[in-house]
Amino acid sequence: MMKPLTAAKIFTLLEPGPVVLVTTRHAGQNNIMAISWTMVMDFTPRFAICTGAWNHSFTALEKTRECVIAIPSADMLDTVVGIGTCSGTDTDKFTRFGLTPAKAQRVQAPLVAQCLANIECKVTEIIAPHGIVVLDGLAAYVNRSKPDQRMLHAIGDGTFVADGERFDRRKAMQSKLPEGV
Amino acid sequence: MMKPLTAAKIFTLLEPGPVVLVTTRHAGQNNIMAISWTMVMDFTPRFAICTGAWNHSFTALEKTRECVIAIPSADMLDTVVGIGTCSGTDTDKFTRFGLTPAKAQRVQAPLVAQCLANIECKVTEIIAPHGIVVLDGLAAYVNRSKPDQRMLHAIGDGTFVADGERFDRRKAMQSKLPEGV
Repeated sequence: MMKPLTAAKIFTLLEPGPVVLVTTRHAGQNNIMAISWTMVMDFTPRFAICTGAWNHSFTALEKTRECVIAIPSADMLDTVVGIGTCSGTDTDKFTRFGLTPAKAQRVQAPLVAQCLANIECKVTEIIAPHGIVVLDGLAAYVNRSKPDQRMLHAIGDGTFVADGERFDRRKAMQSKLPEGV
Repeated sequence: MMKPLTAAKIFTLLEPGPVVLVTTRHAGQNNIMAISWTMVMDFTPRFAICTGAWNHSFTALEKTRECVIAIPSADMLDTVVGIGTCSGTDTDKFTRFGLTPAKAQRVQAPLVAQCLANIECKVTEIIAPHGIVVLDGLAAYVNRSKPDQRMLHAIGDGTFVADGERFDRRKAMQSKLPEGV
């Protein structure tokens, strides 16, 4: 069950550095890629992802200027690995990996019903020489009822780590937290 | 005991999205800040961090064009929170938090002896309107003998998550791994 998340909290979905899935819809086709080169840029919420023409989805980002960032849970690891090792040029990845595209409100790119969270984004700028795509989150939804709430972190060498022990330092960090977080 | 890490593997220190400490040395003063807005940009190894003039360290990054990215272990959480909630304008943070500055080889900024890993970096570019600082890693060291090898991930709301369960998908990811990783 996906519930809306207030804009002030959207950056908290990406700040911990999870592996994400990025969906696009272009020329009547949904596509999805796995990416872990992402960065929070602001509390507004503004994000960067690093990609380039070697990814089939890059054309869709350039042409449609929108996407959805979906955050998979740890039990989706083999789906994430599968998505990251095949290409939208010859594969309908939603069908192949049994993912359910759900309708977004502000963009044509689909939400991924199975994920922990989805962020509808517009492409604000592509910083060309670096392949940095600047995104603004327009709306976000979280599914707090999924049994596995752990996010995944890619090491980059083919190994992955799931979220472990949690620590609450809200009190000590209070002076640094923006309104509404 | 810090051991060198080959250049091809340096990006694997930042790809999982850990909270990092960034050290600088400017006008005879060491300084250190906590940051979790970072992104791998390339396998070369090239990174981005997002910061700005509101951080005391930003001037040092601009003037000296170098820094060290140090990765704290989970048992250093309260040091990280402390570093993130005071300023180098009025505090010698190495002294206050009992951190040991160690000599780097390629930059003047100090390594942090207590950390899991240290990356000596030069500032390659500052993408001004966005506060994106592009860094190239020159050398890196890892301490595999620290008992707590877990990295920390900031959620951004004052809570933190440590690394948990690990998964090996090297075989399935093989086609996507660059040489030497």
